Amino acid sequence: MNIKETIVSQAQAAKTASKKLALLSSKEKNRILLAMAKALDAASEDIIFRNSIDIEAAKNAELSGALIDRLTINETRIKALSASLEKVASLDDPIGTIISEWTPPAGISIEKVRVPLGVIGIIYESRPNVTVDSAGLALKSGNAVILRGGSEAINSNHALAKIISKAAYENGLPEGSIQFVETTDREAVTELIRQDGLIDLIIPRGREEMIEFIRENATVPVLSHGKGLCHTYVDAKASMDMAVNIAFNAKCQRPGVCNAMETLLVHEDIAKKLLPILCKKYAEAGVELRGCPIAVSIVPDIKRAAESDWSTEYQDMILSIKVVSSNEEAIDHINKFGSGHSEAIITEDKITAEKFLKEVDASAVFHNASTRLHDGGVFGFGSEMGISTQKLHARGTMGLNELTSTKFIVHGHGEIRT
Amino acid sequence: MNIKETIVSQAQAAKTASKKLALLSSKEKNRILLAMAKALDAASEDIIFRNSIDIEAAKNAELSGALIDRLTINETRIKALSASLEKVASLDDPIGTIISEWTPPAGISIEKVRVPLGVIGIIYESRPNVTVDSAGLALKSGNAVILRGGSEAINSNHALAKIISKAAYENGLPEGSIQFVETTDREAVTELIRQDGLIDLIIPRGREEMIEFIRENATVPVLSHGKGLCHTYVDAKASMDMAVNIAFNAKCQRPGVCNAMETLLVHEDIAKKLLPILCKKYAEAGVELRGCPIAVSIVPDIKRAAESDWSTEYQDMILSIKVVSSNEEAIDHINKFGSGHSEAIITEDKITAEKFLKEVDASAVFHNASTRLHDGGVFGFGSEMGISTQKLHARGTMGLNELTSTKFIVHGHGEIRT
Repeated sequence: MNIKETIVSQAQAAKTASKKLALLSSKEKNRILLAMAKALDAASEDIIFRNSIDIEAAKNAELSGALIDRLTINETRIKALSASLEKVASLDDPIGTIISEWTPPAGISIEKVRVPLGVIGIIYESRPNVTVDSAGLALKSGNAVILRGGSEAINSNHALAKIISKAAYENGLPEGSIQFVETTDREAVTELIRQDGLIDLIIPRGREEMIEFIRENATVPVLSHGKGLCHTYVDAKASMDMAVNIAFNAKCQRPGVCNAMETLLVHEDIAKKLLPILCKKYAEAGVELRGCPIAVSIVPDIKRAAESDWSTEYQDMILSIKVVSSNEEAIDHINKFGSGHSEAIITEDKITAEKFLKEVDASAVFHNASTRLHDGGVFGFGSEMGISTQKLHARGTMGLNELTSTKFIVHGHGEIRT
Repeated sequence: MNIKETIVSQAQAAKTASKKLALLSSKEKNRILLAMAKALDAASEDIIFRNSIDIEAAKNAELSGALIDRLTINETRIKALSASLEKVASLDDPIGTIISEWTPPAGISIEKVRVPLGVIGIIYESRPNVTVDSAGLALKSGNAVILRGGSEAINSNHALAKIISKAAYENGLPEGSIQFVETTDREAVTELIRQDGLIDLIIPRGREEMIEFIRENATVPVLSHGKGLCHTYVDAKASMDMAVNIAFNAKCQRPGVCNAMETLLVHEDIAKKLLPILCKKYAEAGVELRGCPIAVSIVPDIKRAAESDWSTEYQDMILSIKVVSSNEEAIDHINKFGSGHSEAIITEDKITAEKFLKEVDASAVFHNASTRLHDGGVFGFGSEMGISTQKLHARGTMGLNELTSTKFIVHGHGEIRT
């Protein structure tokens, strides 16, 4: 079979499996998830060996240390993977949940219930944990899954997919429910994203160019994890200690991820007090600072920001800083330059906070908390399928509910339309 | 301005307006809706006159009686339009509704609330009531709207849009919130569906070819009203009277619409009793019947169905009939040939019904009721934006909630990511 035929046949097998999988009970699904977790723990030696082949190749290809870190699997990370499957098993099953029920004047009674989407295709890069996390979430939400990881992690992904599928099938998962795309040829992606009628949803996770390619070329609906150009606004009435703590955390705790802060906005009434303290901390941590003229006038070590800085997602130890004269100016700046991901305000003034939370247009808005908290794990969803910056179907971190559709179930007593 | 410039400028104006509109209170929106209703009633003479120009043109173009009926506006229909705006005003405002709230171990408190989508583009044909219904639903859900009706109703749509916008703006709706596309040139559609970043959602309502064109060419997300190939399955344990009544209603009450039945499935144990009675009723009503060999052997007046009949949406007084030997066979037939719209089972056996309701994959499934009841009005949504047969974002009849997105609002006390 050529690549196209292979993908079509995998998609067909997944579709067939999805119909049986949709009918599994929560108990059956949870037993399968726990068996997958157990199998991972038992196979950790094999997984680490297969992972070492990818690491070796990455080192030979002189990939960055950060990338190699993202690729690496060790005992601790395997424990985290199996723990996340156990967590997903412990979560409420979304399938069959009645979202609402009512009896309209027509006399019929209506229930709106959650049902699986069917088949979900995940196209991802680097981190092999996505293989396990997404298979677990898809399974619990009653969906078959097609996994297409990046070439840099092919050995690790293959090993993980094989181990979890074997355990799952031995414990009653309908054969075909977990499909792993073995080829690393790009053509496989191009075929996957056009399997209308067989695949119900494509979730891309990775570099922006990859996501852009998929959005442009897919005919299957796409739920994408967009870029994160996140802001923190320190209002005039902020607690100084809290502002320093949160602004430092939002930038430095893990600068390479989508919910890290890229631009700090500071009210002019607090800038002279806050910036010297905060910028010293940033400088000590090695953050490069780029500011507006007022920021530079307060802390001369700050470089002058170019206009393009306000629209740049650094994903690095770089921060742009702008002094603003009001909450309104902060909101306008965010709605103009933000990517609608995660936005925070630090203030002790409730009215100012409420205005900000209401008027900033983003998937998650934070009052007196770090944007880094926008995460499925932190939010209590077990793991996450990514963070959607689109407005349709799912917005923000995506858990089990976001992998479902709905169905109206109507009970009557002979009612007709008149 | 050329067509492209006009569309871009209308989309920009709508986007700007949408930001103010999103902040209106329920009270303000309801006052505007009631003013729109009042203005329609007051202008009925003018509307009927403008509508008569479209009717005249339709008659000259020798359009069908059914199409002319869909185009026609009279006193009663204007009353129905203003009543539906009043109904929408009386419904709960979805915006700001807290869908769920919880406090994860991290200590922050999270609310998931409904927010508007932003700008919705409606592309529709024939029935001028869509102008009013969709403007009303969009407004109540906090969205700006761009209306693009068909050329056959251009005078009626223009009059309706003008009357409701004027009343709405006079009562506080932000200027620009209701945009009406004046040109009937197809290029306007091609431009509308590519205004990413300005338009958040396109809802097409009309012929399948039109919807297909939009799905193929749109870069803005599309929520489409797909075709309806609906079935009614009469089980062996059905009440005869109820089966005759529902099966007749589902086919004949309004055969040209998407939730009308196209194929009747009958269990072999009841077919000999049911089909003679039911087919006599159909024949008297002028329904053309096409059946499987067993159906034909029971009622010789039935014509032999071709294989293509099982996958044809007649939208006409034609019905295909198949005798099946089990509930499973009915479910398989529906999942193979159905369009995932509305599917019904008639039975007194609860276990059979539950199996059918669970295993049939459709946006709405009915037990002992007519598929014709799948309707926003009947379901209590005021009016509807169409019936979605897709699984993402909205499935089945779409009301106010389906025109919203969500936002996580997070309150903290200085929480950071560790």
